Amino acid sequence: MIIVTNREITNEQWENLCCKLEECGFKTHVIQGVEKKVIGAVGDKRRIDFRFLENIPGVEKVIPILSPYKLVARDAKPEGTTVDVGGVKMGGGFFGVFAGPCAVENREQLLEVAYGLKKAGSGGLRGGAFKPRTSPYSFQGLEEEGLKLLAEARAKTGLPIITELMNLTELDLVNEYTDIIQIGARNMQNFGLLRAVGRQSKPVLLKRGLAATVEEWLMAAEYIMSEGNSQVILCERGIRTFETATRNTLDLSAVALAKSFSHLPVVVDPSHGTGKRRLVLPMAKAAVVAGADGLLIEVHPDPANALSDGEQSLDLPEFEKLMVQINELVKLEGKKIN
Amino acid sequence: MIIVTNREITNEQWENLCCKLEECGFKTHVIQGVEKKVIGAVGDKRRIDFRFLENIPGVEKVIPILSPYKLVARDAKPEGTTVDVGGVKMGGGFFGVFAGPCAVENREQLLEVAYGLKKAGSGGLRGGAFKPRTSPYSFQGLEEEGLKLLAEARAKTGLPIITELMNLTELDLVNEYTDIIQIGARNMQNFGLLRAVGRQSKPVLLKRGLAATVEEWLMAAEYIMSEGNSQVILCERGIRTFETATRNTLDLSAVALAKSFSHLPVVVDPSHGTGKRRLVLPMAKAAVVAGADGLLIEVHPDPANALSDGEQSLDLPEFEKLMVQINELVKLEGKKIN
Amino acid sequence: MIIVTNREITNEQWENLCCKLEECGFKTHVIQGVEKKVIGAVGDKRRIDFRFLENIPGVEKVIPILSPYKLVARDAKPEGTTVDVGGVKMGGGFFGVFAGPCAVENREQLLEVAYGLKKAGSGGLRGGAFKPRTSPYSFQGLEEEGLKLLAEARAKTGLPIITELMNLTELDLVNEYTDIIQIGARNMQNFGLLRAVGRQSKPVLLKRGLAATVEEWLMAAEYIMSEGNSQVILCERGIRTFETATRNTLDLSAVALAKSFSHLPVVVDPSHGTGKRRLVLPMAKAAVVAGADGLLIEVHPDPANALSDGEQSLDLPEFEKLMVQINELVKLEGKKIN
Amino acid sequence: MIIVTNREITNEQWENLCCKLEECGFKTHVIQGVEKKVIGAVGDKRRIDFRFLENIPGVEKVIPILSPYKLVARDAKPEGTTVDVGGVKMGGGFFGVFAGPCAVENREQLLEVAYGLKKAGSGGLRGGAFKPRTSPYSFQGLEEEGLKLLAEARAKTGLPIITELMNLTELDLVNEYTDIIQIGARNMQNFGLLRAVGRQSKPVLLKRGLAATVEEWLMAAEYIMSEGNSQVILCERGIRTFETATRNTLDLSAVALAKSFSHLPVVVDPSHGTGKRRLVLPMAKAAVVAGADGLLIEVHPDPANALSDGEQSLDLPEFEKLMVQINELVKLEGKKIN
Repeated sequence: MIIVTNREITNEQWENLCCKLEECGFKTHVIQGVEKKVIGAVGDKRRIDFRFLENIPGVEKVIPILSPYKLVARDAKPEGTTVDVGGVKMGGGFFGVFAGPCAVENREQLLEVAYGLKKAGSGGLRGGAFKPRTSPYSFQGLEEEGLKLLAEARAKTGLPIITELMNLTELDLVNEYTDIIQIGARNMQNFGLLRAVGRQSKPVLLKRGLAATVEEWLMAAEYIMSEGNSQVILCERGIRTFETATRNTLDLSAVALAKSFSHLPVVVDPSHGTGKRRLVLPMAKAAVVAGADGLLIEVHPDPANALSDGEQSLDLPEFEKLMVQINELVKLEGKKIN
Repeated sequence: MIIVTNREITNEQWENLCCKLEECGFKTHVIQGVEKKVIGAVGDKRRIDFRFLENIPGVEKVIPILSPYKLVARDAKPEGTTVDVGGVKMGGGFFGVFAGPCAVENREQLLEVAYGLKKAGSGGLRGGAFKPRTSPYSFQGLEEEGLKLLAEARAKTGLPIITELMNLTELDLVNEYTDIIQIGARNMQNFGLLRAVGRQSKPVLLKRGLAATVEEWLMAAEYIMSEGNSQVILCERGIRTFETATRNTLDLSAVALAKSFSHLPVVVDPSHGTGKRRLVLPMAKAAVVAGADGLLIEVHPDPANALSDGEQSLDLPEFEKLMVQINELVKLEGKKIN
Repeated sequence: MIIVTNREITNEQWENLCCKLEECGFKTHVIQGVEKKVIGAVGDKRRIDFRFLENIPGVEKVIPILSPYKLVARDAKPEGTTVDVGGVKMGGGFFGVFAGPCAVENREQLLEVAYGLKKAGSGGLRGGAFKPRTSPYSFQGLEEEGLKLLAEARAKTGLPIITELMNLTELDLVNEYTDIIQIGARNMQNFGLLRAVGRQSKPVLLKRGLAATVEEWLMAAEYIMSEGNSQVILCERGIRTFETATRNTLDLSAVALAKSFSHLPVVVDPSHGTGKRRLVLPMAKAAVVAGADGLLIEVHPDPANALSDGEQSLDLPEFEKLMVQINELVKLEGKKIN
Repeated sequence: MIIVTNREITNEQWENLCCKLEECGFKTHVIQGVEKKVIGAVGDKRRIDFRFLENIPGVEKVIPILSPYKLVARDAKPEGTTVDVGGVKMGGGFFGVFAGPCAVENREQLLEVAYGLKKAGSGGLRGGAFKPRTSPYSFQGLEEEGLKLLAEARAKTGLPIITELMNLTELDLVNEYTDIIQIGARNMQNFGLLRAVGRQSKPVLLKRGLAATVEEWLMAAEYIMSEGNSQVILCERGIRTFETATRNTLDLSAVALAKSFSHLPVVVDPSHGTGKRRLVLPMAKAAVVAGADGLLIEVHPDPANALSDGEQSLDLPEFEKLMVQINELVKLEGKKIN
């Protein structure tokens, strides 16, 4: 940690600062610059928040040298983590695709799409039973009924399922049905929820928040891992920027970056990431060659009549076409699709 | 609602679209433009989400005319709402200040600051018992112990208290102690939490999310009001932008804007909004003349030793100075501070 | 164009508005909604700016239906434009790569890299002679000397060259040497410069501004085309967002989007787009499969000693490796690299 | 400057790095941390760009300690700069208002507004003769004719004038007429233009770019000052963010911040900053108490018929009302309006 002091720091403030650092267990090295004095404080204290040092009179700023995450860091497991979701592996050379409707709407819709996905070679089935919606007047999901339908689709097709957990109160319920717990973008910093899923034995897919930096995203994963659950998959799904021509701005550099910083698998959701059906295929392909370990794709048997997110859902023929192209690229990347 | 169709729309697609709109209860008016056909669909259906119409083949885009919120809209109560928090009124010509430490740390700290705030003329006391922290290794708050200390401080000084509710599981606990429930920026779209506080009789302070538009912020308030609780205060606390010189970018235009769109009181938190102690006073003053109905200010008896957010906390003498200047401006605005 | 009126519009205001629209040559269609009256104004007036209608008393907002660009729109040339830069074609099924150092530094550096690029299969040579730098104290380029060295490198290797034009005053000079004029991101809305290059017979590469929407980018291209030059290539090079882990956020969705809106070729600059050497290869690959028609890549014979942008420059062996992988993907996309 | 090295740095790389730093004239201090070695490099070299050090093998990142600007820094002139624009002073305790139409449209319009502004107490007259417009088909200004009308209005009313310089080619022309040269947001990093106005004897008003950090804005001012012109006024006019309810997000914290970093006066343009007439008054007031040294306000005698920016222009009665309220606040701030 580097502590930069003000030009006007008094001797007394300086003494006080040095004492404080020693109290905290740091060894200090002073560098007398041309205009300012700088302290190098040595000691691995990354489990403590040292932003408070900025409050000490005479301190201008505090610059951390070590990254604030530890368990999720690439160093902790250089070979990379493989997460197995009901038989579909992601990370460590494995590539997985989970596809399905934004929301589970009814039995016919779900079974039709599940059979179609199976046939097209999807690894797993995605579908929302609890839906976070901007408006209280929008369709909010079928809740437990939706979970049961997902389980039925799994039983019939063999596809493992992923569904979102929105509230702590529904943890047991969702946990009972799903093969992997999805934490949505809006809940990326719902720390109570992160801790709770960190205590489960099910894998967790953690979507990046709309306004989250890669570092904050990794810190959210650190919350989960710090409770003992190391089966975490990161999911890039677009960030919010000034551009309104797409629903979000899909940040594919973040995929390559997260994979270099962390050993966790990273998957991409080009459906939410773009919000436009015609951009799903090119962005899915781009995700593969950018290094992603999997995809989440919204597919609806009849997008024109979807209760939510139809404008970004593929129909089954489009998804089949996507799988053909994705397969080719995954092979080219030297990964195994499953 | 305006539906713009593609240039290439077929007759069949056109028929299908018109049927669909009629099924939904709209009266349709067709406008034949130079290049495109446009439909004006008339009917107040704002409680339904019509984004799905964009999925219908032949539709290019759907443009809503009415705002998506109803209960929070200014029209619903043109004279404005006054919310009373344990005797401190905000909105409808009243201005309230809640000040205090980011986190309740211990009895001495809290009582010292509470007495000081009372003396300086603060309306109420703020303090976190449950703290949302980016790192799992940072101080997370004193939890129930913190709530008890807040209640003690209230008993001793008469200052009503505000504290944050982070998780549904702590609702009863927080509700028992606080005078107004604070929903933090990270939970602005935690819809389960919004619905739950919407069923309480305590007022709710709803912070704007880091990446939330004014419209989404008002929709979050609509979630609360749609459950029956109309005592909602909006709080602007900065948004996330490309600028890194401040912790967030305090969006004071949003204050004036939210007040024109909605009848709810709007308060400002310049401490989180800027993240820098020396910017708190100018931004607090700016908030008053921009039309805010109150302020949330972080004050710590000894910012240099604060466990969190010390770099943006005022000490008591600074807060006293702020109150003098704020008082003058509130009077100039024709409002009553309390 | 749709004009939404205020609920409180008076009869007089209404009459005045309708008159105004007729004066402007529109046919008007009135839609009486539940709460508001809406006017559909028909007539292709996209060459006029109608934002002023929002000033007319009683008007709430004006919603354009047609896109504001005309010459660059896909409709204007559905088959797509191919731009030929000294023999290297981009667009219409052709893919071109221009590589080279951020800045031309000296004869040895440039010739070394030019021979290396030729050998690795680069289509052309990029290099800055005039450099836009944030600090007045940074290296600003070799100016005319740099242009002469680029010409020498072209003469020796046969590679056509691209270099940036920063100021109108250097137009003739740059034009004399370059095969395609580059307009940098900071000048995307330097309208005088756009008009001037629109009057040249050389092709123009137009970088997207840091904070430009896709629509504004296309409007900037419209400026060039409206002066008669239709040989325009669009270049995505990253936008500015809250994320600081990368220099910019490379927006690959914008590539697919711009290609659907416009007939112009779109190329990608992953060097500036990410600012990090290790992200250049994955993002270059992603650009190809997202639909790009070419790449701009920073290559330096000795990045550790580059005078600018070394942190995002590949060395020659890295570039050779990139070309091998790019070739494979371009072929897979059914395009011809040249 | 702090140089953080990789964990994997070899001895050879380390030697090479230290040599390099010494070559550049730095004294080096090594800090051996728990995981990484860090070098403190001492020497005031802020006139050189040291980002290139990040390219040296073994270097992870370079952290500058000193700010990159020198001439504009507060330290260089702690008492603050006062700029005199034809008798209207800004900075150093003086507050100035320049108001007028977005674009000069015709003689009647300009003279009517100029007399009205004079009567309402405006310090100076603003008006565009050359207009930067997103669309090539929008009104582009009256050019020299507009400058002549501005000069006539000045002669008649005594109000000094400000107008924008867009292109180097128009420098002499604009310089002949204006009392202060305005550099628009889109040209904030048009470095050729900055250098050129840096060689004039007229003061310069430098608008902040849409996507410019406060540091980049100050660096742009450094370009002007480095050529010898120290009469620079900074102007905050809103930045681009995800929020679309306002045209830009007016960043008032940047005003307080820029004033603490720099000795230059800072003014605010709430008209462009918000894009909405009804937000101009509250944001103008907020700017005053946030520490601004002046205002730029768009006023049009008949906003409903303005050729540009009417939706954000005040009419004369609104401006008179604004001046009354602004006067009161300026006095309260202990400044002198002129």
